[in-house]
Amino acid sequence: MKLSALAEKLGCSVRGSGDVEVTRGRGIAEAGPGDLTFLANPKYAPKLAATHASAIVVAPDIATPLPSLLSSNPYLTFAQALPLLHPARRPLPGIHRTAHVDPSAVIGPDVTVGPFAVVGGRCRVGARTIIHAHVVVYDDVEIGEDCLLYSGVHVREGSRLGKRVVLQDGVVIGADGFGFAKDSDGHYQNFPQVGIAVIEDDVEIQANTTVDRAALGETRIGRGTKIDNLVQVAHSVTIGEDSILCAQVGVSGSTKVGNRVTLTGQVGVVGHLEIGDGAIATAQSGIAHSVPAGALVSGYPAIENRSWLRSVVLFARLPELLRRLRTVEKRLGLSDAGRE
Amino acid sequence: MKLSALAEKLGCSVRGSGDVEVTRGRGIAEAGPGDLTFLANPKYAPKLAATHASAIVVAPDIATPLPSLLSSNPYLTFAQALPLLHPARRPLPGIHRTAHVDPSAVIGPDVTVGPFAVVGGRCRVGARTIIHAHVVVYDDVEIGEDCLLYSGVHVREGSRLGKRVVLQDGVVIGADGFGFAKDSDGHYQNFPQVGIAVIEDDVEIQANTTVDRAALGETRIGRGTKIDNLVQVAHSVTIGEDSILCAQVGVSGSTKVGNRVTLTGQVGVVGHLEIGDGAIATAQSGIAHSVPAGALVSGYPAIENRSWLRSVVLFARLPELLRRLRTVEKRLGLSDAGRE
Amino acid sequence: MKLSALAEKLGCSVRGSGDVEVTRGRGIAEAGPGDLTFLANPKYAPKLAATHASAIVVAPDIATPLPSLLSSNPYLTFAQALPLLHPARRPLPGIHRTAHVDPSAVIGPDVTVGPFAVVGGRCRVGARTIIHAHVVVYDDVEIGEDCLLYSGVHVREGSRLGKRVVLQDGVVIGADGFGFAKDSDGHYQNFPQVGIAVIEDDVEIQANTTVDRAALGETRIGRGTKIDNLVQVAHSVTIGEDSILCAQVGVSGSTKVGNRVTLTGQVGVVGHLEIGDGAIATAQSGIAHSVPAGALVSGYPAIENRSWLRSVVLFARLPELLRRLRTVEKRLGLSDAGRE
Repeated sequence: MKLSALAEKLGCSVRGSGDVEVTRGRGIAEAGPGDLTFLANPKYAPKLAATHASAIVVAPDIATPLPSLLSSNPYLTFAQALPLLHPARRPLPGIHRTAHVDPSAVIGPDVTVGPFAVVGGRCRVGARTIIHAHVVVYDDVEIGEDCLLYSGVHVREGSRLGKRVVLQDGVVIGADGFGFAKDSDGHYQNFPQVGIAVIEDDVEIQANTTVDRAALGETRIGRGTKIDNLVQVAHSVTIGEDSILCAQVGVSGSTKVGNRVTLTGQVGVVGHLEIGDGAIATAQSGIAHSVPAGALVSGYPAIENRSWLRSVVLFARLPELLRRLRTVEKRLGLSDAGRE
Repeated sequence: MKLSALAEKLGCSVRGSGDVEVTRGRGIAEAGPGDLTFLANPKYAPKLAATHASAIVVAPDIATPLPSLLSSNPYLTFAQALPLLHPARRPLPGIHRTAHVDPSAVIGPDVTVGPFAVVGGRCRVGARTIIHAHVVVYDDVEIGEDCLLYSGVHVREGSRLGKRVVLQDGVVIGADGFGFAKDSDGHYQNFPQVGIAVIEDDVEIQANTTVDRAALGETRIGRGTKIDNLVQVAHSVTIGEDSILCAQVGVSGSTKVGNRVTLTGQVGVVGHLEIGDGAIATAQSGIAHSVPAGALVSGYPAIENRSWLRSVVLFARLPELLRRLRTVEKRLGLSDAGRE
Repeated sequence: MKLSALAEKLGCSVRGSGDVEVTRGRGIAEAGPGDLTFLANPKYAPKLAATHASAIVVAPDIATPLPSLLSSNPYLTFAQALPLLHPARRPLPGIHRTAHVDPSAVIGPDVTVGPFAVVGGRCRVGARTIIHAHVVVYDDVEIGEDCLLYSGVHVREGSRLGKRVVLQDGVVIGADGFGFAKDSDGHYQNFPQVGIAVIEDDVEIQANTTVDRAALGETRIGRGTKIDNLVQVAHSVTIGEDSILCAQVGVSGSTKVGNRVTLTGQVGVVGHLEIGDGAIATAQSGIAHSVPAGALVSGYPAIENRSWLRSVVLFARLPELLRRLRTVEKRLGLSDAGRE
């Protein structure tokens, strides 16, 4: 595709030749002739000189002799260019002859249901939704328009999915939460999980992640929130809008996560807490107390990030601190030799 | 259902009007007219005044004007009331026409096998067990009576499940353990995993959790133990009875976990250890040494909880401790300026 | 099988009677009559006297009256003996009548495709590969010879698998990476993941692990690397040859892991780092900076293992250190009573 044609579709202006042909998107270090690349983070500007890309998406204030698509948000513009260069193959609409769709399910126009997929009784599936092979949708599930469910997704009874929800392979929505009541013999008896799971519009959930149904009421993932692979969202959790949960995060039961929150990789959150809007937890943090809006927390247990950074440095210096303490004690004739 | 009818089924006594109608169970803050709620933890007693529930399950010593079911264990009684108010929809018995059941499998009375499920050669499936759509049971598996296997469960060859075992969607039982022998070229050669996995009666395992088969002998999950989502139980591990493994716990190979143990979220346990009966590990603990019975451990590496709590507080105060040490050094004319 | 026959197949010499019959492999403590066991770690030599095994694999310098297979690498030799004693049941070649194989797929000789498996358009599957029931192979996937894909494996479009690749149940290869571009309204827009995932020869990946496709270019797992259950390998990661990733490890986007690296259980690695050849990270480490070749790191954030071990000991002694500091302060008339 000519760069000028791409610019027109994206509503960008071109600097340099718009006649250059680009056929593929690649990173700045790997790109070669025919590739479109991008520069989003100014710290990578030194790589500009060495790239073999044919064209680039950059902010207008970045100088480069390469033919350029100009954008105030090059990362977003590049993301929007990718499907034009790499059109996704969309399966044809229709219900595969091997799929098992209950006659009482209401299937919207132009829906795709792949081989061996199962759609249960009284389900509603919105227009243009794609249900890949080997998806299981239990009874009484509502799925909005333009959703994309990859193979091996399991959506349990009564769950509700909004519009444009994307579930990658192996995601489980609405499995029973982990609730048991101890009886007088010390055995755990099942606490029936009679609530549901609700996934709002524009949520994307990635491979093998689990979102449990509520014990009572709802588990809810808010509009536009993105959840990475192998994340655990326990029963009765609510997550706000435009939040990010990175891989292997675990959120325990009944915790409320706000809007625009970022929980990075392997963070754990104890149950019944509140994580305020815009809060960020750095990787592997263990959150044991509620976090105010806008906070940046780290550590196990998680504390304010700046404090944690200072303490972490001193943790590594503990042997030195002990030596200095001993020197002081020796000077004062205080001996601790006995106990060491 | 009238509260009095519910009381009779549960063997409870009623305080106040037994004529009130309840149709649903809800939490104390969310409950409205027609709802039954409960008060299990006295610290939530202040919420009693504000609830809109029509009736409540409480301990006899809790004063409330609401019509009440009296129970010494309100949480358990409420759990037992839920299936009466929210009866689970049980699939009809029978083998779905699209299921693939090997002719040599022995299927008990009133078993359900859902669409596209696979049951291998020489399997035995006990009475009333429900095998949902898209379950794969390999050859030579034994499944007891009244089990419930949700969609996407995979049970590998030779595994043995007791009675009333519940496996949520995506659980993998008996996949190969992680065992390799290094050869003289530094390559890892497969160590065949010829053992099996055994799941005893009344065990519940939740979504996308994995329990590997043993290298030699058995991996075993003891009666009544409950395992949450995305947990890893490695080869040759044994877990006792009535234990709890919360989400994303990992137990490494050959470790023995006792009875009534609680491993909370994201705890990791090194291989070849013993975790004594009744031990508890708080969230994200990293257990690197065996833990005695009854111990409460925390931290990474895990130590006795009380010690850990004291040290954690001081960790956050390390900058202050350094300042105080410097003050002392200055007073004594000891300078560390050079190395900082 | 007679021990002498086993020795001949394995190319080992026998010490003691080669006429003893062995039918099973078991660990040294559990073995009984008819069992072959092994001694790989000299620290278990005291167990030699008590074993009931009929024969053992040992190094030549280990004295034992048991009939012995002599090997300089007893663990490897025992691993090689196991399939001779416990031959794996191999499914018959052929495409099951319920499988859905696209007519444009090229299936090699003696391939097995199990019930309800799906093989997409233009796929190529090498000779003798076994695709179990309920595997989904999307379009344009290449799978080499002698691979073994267990049930519930999902291989996304365009992925490439080498020879002798083993994927345990529930593995997801090539699902979309976690990439989003924030727009001016603070919403996350999808960054199309147009790269692929490449799994080289002799890689084994265990149950419910996820390896994402690259955003651009490739995610790549190098020859002979072994990955345990519930591991997350993010988009555009490359892992070298003969490396080990234990259960629940997470490697973030674009990180490069070298050859012969060992990441033990629940280790997390931040994105865009380099982990040098031969490096080892102990369990639960949180790696926030690149790690040089050959390093042994621990902790959160991970530091050199020896330093960490020293600091960890002092962490537990922080209350004592504070007491000693107070004693010093009191001696000097420095009071901190006010702030505590």
